[in-house]
Amino acid sequence: MTGDLATFESALRQKLPAKSFGAHDPKYFEEPRGLFHGTPTLVLKPENTAEVAVILSLANQEGIGVVPYGGGTGLVGGQVADRKHAYVVVSLERMNRILDVDPTGNVIFAEAGVLLQDIQHRAANADRLFPLSLASEGSCRIGGNLATNAGGINVLRYGNARDLCLGLEVVLADGQIWNGLSRLLKDNTGFDLRNLMIGSEGTLGVITAASLRLFPLPKNRSAAFVALDDPKAALDLLALAQDSLGENLSAFELMNETGAAFLMEKMPQVRQILDPTPSWSVLLEISGGESFLANNALERLLEKAFESGIIIDGLLSQSESQRQSFWAFRESIPAANRLVGAIYSHDISVPLKSIPEFVTRANAALAAFGPLRINCFGHLGDGNLHYNVFPPSGRSKDDFAEQRERIRETVYGMVHELGGSISAEHGIGRLKKDDLARYGDPVKLAMMRHVKTALDPKGIMNPGVLF
Amino acid sequence: MTGDLATFESALRQKLPAKSFGAHDPKYFEEPRGLFHGTPTLVLKPENTAEVAVILSLANQEGIGVVPYGGGTGLVGGQVADRKHAYVVVSLERMNRILDVDPTGNVIFAEAGVLLQDIQHRAANADRLFPLSLASEGSCRIGGNLATNAGGINVLRYGNARDLCLGLEVVLADGQIWNGLSRLLKDNTGFDLRNLMIGSEGTLGVITAASLRLFPLPKNRSAAFVALDDPKAALDLLALAQDSLGENLSAFELMNETGAAFLMEKMPQVRQILDPTPSWSVLLEISGGESFLANNALERLLEKAFESGIIIDGLLSQSESQRQSFWAFRESIPAANRLVGAIYSHDISVPLKSIPEFVTRANAALAAFGPLRINCFGHLGDGNLHYNVFPPSGRSKDDFAEQRERIRETVYGMVHELGGSISAEHGIGRLKKDDLARYGDPVKLAMMRHVKTALDPKGIMNPGVLF
Repeated sequence: MTGDLATFESALRQKLPAKSFGAHDPKYFEEPRGLFHGTPTLVLKPENTAEVAVILSLANQEGIGVVPYGGGTGLVGGQVADRKHAYVVVSLERMNRILDVDPTGNVIFAEAGVLLQDIQHRAANADRLFPLSLASEGSCRIGGNLATNAGGINVLRYGNARDLCLGLEVVLADGQIWNGLSRLLKDNTGFDLRNLMIGSEGTLGVITAASLRLFPLPKNRSAAFVALDDPKAALDLLALAQDSLGENLSAFELMNETGAAFLMEKMPQVRQILDPTPSWSVLLEISGGESFLANNALERLLEKAFESGIIIDGLLSQSESQRQSFWAFRESIPAANRLVGAIYSHDISVPLKSIPEFVTRANAALAAFGPLRINCFGHLGDGNLHYNVFPPSGRSKDDFAEQRERIRETVYGMVHELGGSISAEHGIGRLKKDDLARYGDPVKLAMMRHVKTALDPKGIMNPGVLF
Repeated sequence: MTGDLATFESALRQKLPAKSFGAHDPKYFEEPRGLFHGTPTLVLKPENTAEVAVILSLANQEGIGVVPYGGGTGLVGGQVADRKHAYVVVSLERMNRILDVDPTGNVIFAEAGVLLQDIQHRAANADRLFPLSLASEGSCRIGGNLATNAGGINVLRYGNARDLCLGLEVVLADGQIWNGLSRLLKDNTGFDLRNLMIGSEGTLGVITAASLRLFPLPKNRSAAFVALDDPKAALDLLALAQDSLGENLSAFELMNETGAAFLMEKMPQVRQILDPTPSWSVLLEISGGESFLANNALERLLEKAFESGIIIDGLLSQSESQRQSFWAFRESIPAANRLVGAIYSHDISVPLKSIPEFVTRANAALAAFGPLRINCFGHLGDGNLHYNVFPPSGRSKDDFAEQRERIRETVYGMVHELGGSISAEHGIGRLKKDDLARYGDPVKLAMMRHVKTALDPKGIMNPGVLF
């Protein structure tokens, strides 16, 4: 790419209305962890798919990089451009219309710029569930959720963003529009390009709209917050819960005591759940239709788990507000982490049976770096842990700047050795592309490059991401 | 491709043991519907992945076509080669080892040649469910199920083959081996090449092994067989069932009276379920863990459905053998169809809300061709119908040979107009590639060609399929 931005901009101004050009708001050049900073450049805010097509067609012609921008909440720098390239930001925020809700077909159609929360609400108004749920749901946009194949708290039961998408509309690198907005649950007609686009982090095209799966709104649900000795006990509880509850188990979140301590320290307004704070705790939720007696089922499960010594303390939610307080605790942990300031945050997954071994070995290995604090929490049911490393109380992450790389290598090396993933749900972006090159299968990486070249021969789409 | 088979074979004999060369068994050159016939050629039966890699590497070098062969049960001719090309058959039947079963991680590892039924049994022995289930499960092989993204009766709850696969090992067109046999439920590291391979019908490489998801074995289940007036009532019952049962609803199969009539005529040993035979019937099944009271829940649902006039007759299974007799009836319909002999079998899906309209309009349009018999049955919960067209009693499908194309165009045209798919679960193969070119999105087709060229530049993989 050797494009000239000024030429591109003047050509574009002939074709797009003035309101599709945005201001240099700093938000387009920052990301939540402060690790990447973009160089201010043209910010485009297309109103519709045809405008996106005009932008990409011209960018491809002129060799200008295109950075698609959703809600800006991504944690791997995918939304902040590499400074080396002439590029533009294409924000989907004006394309925020819900196009159709079809409760019979269990599908909702939304433009890429719709906030995740708005989709959840529109689904609920139609007596349906859109299960994708994550901490940033009030500000992330569905196009970004799909481009990064977002995960969250309901993956155990409903899958990640990929599993919730029936179809896409995508503008390809050369400006062509692929209309794949299907309502169909089953359609076996050729290569699965939908899933190729989902999780490609804006490197193959711009997702402009999606058709998404809806589910029956759970009519009965119940949650429990329980104390355990260690991750092994959490795995035993998971097995017992799956045996007893099948797919009515919808969430299974593990937390260690550091999460509670950080909340006490930085966000005392968040109510603690168990006293004393247990070494490890699990928030589990079960749900089902009208016929499912959630409270009874969860009560029986907890009784069994107490009897067999798997859990040592626990609360069963007695009201909707108590259930919400369990979730408020869990969902506030990332915010508390940001206030404390992590040396490094690892979004990893390992095979379920290796989780106890991973936690024991990683904690031991990191002890060599000093009395670090480890906040280990996440979606245990999916094998996905956020293994986040913090300085000792009274010290700052900057004190550990020199050890940062070695800490990261220690953790990732162990994850890799156990057959795990260095990015379970956040993606690769710009942050982890060297890690991908290091730990990824070389044959897979070569295939990825072939596919990238086939679909974006000039390499204009999100340059610097993945590759 | 302009390869010389004799040169290829002599090079191959240097590198592979004699037992990896098979006999010209006719089964490799036929397919169940008798529409395609291959020309006898070299049949290779590699024992392991390394041998597959040797075959593909040499084939790629010499420009020889490769037709991967699983159980031979596919219904669109994907397993029977195009006569125009020099080609070999690569049967995975000797690669039939189950490599690992991990009940903690809910994953099973199998080579591509393992029979689907063997995977189901091994999962059940570990107190787990592998939910993929279809009529040919005793003879189809998992590699073929994945290559064609097979569907079946449990898609409503568990998804199709794609949704049940965690990872693949694939030999690419040039003989390189991609080792993607992951145990991980979440792994967001780069393009989704697993799903690109799944459903690519052998046109991008040979799947040699897979890691597959297991689920809790349902501890309680119950089935009902009910009579309804029309497909609209079936949709109403589906909505009621989802409301009341959520994801505990695991199967929802629609049948019309023709299925029952064909069974009476051709397979009288199969027990009829309802007397008199209803115009339409639904077999629904619900299941869950120990805590789920399946019989009570289904009984309440049926009461509600009777009260609101949705169903007019029905049986709730009172025993496991009765539940099995319901399924034996449903699962015998395809065999009866084969004995009657269809003029054309359409494996289609349409948006759920359009199903009543489709059935009414298609029946009316086909009436113009004479007193045809329509056997319409399938996975209503997925919007997937098998809309199969038969001659009147006493006449043969050959009497309608001339009308065949027009019948097919009438049905597919209507499906396309309603936003449906001309192949819901059987794939494209050789049978429907013209239909794909006609009804598929041209931008998608162009992307598919780019991807095919990127990953199989010499076009050796399953030539004549899809493109």
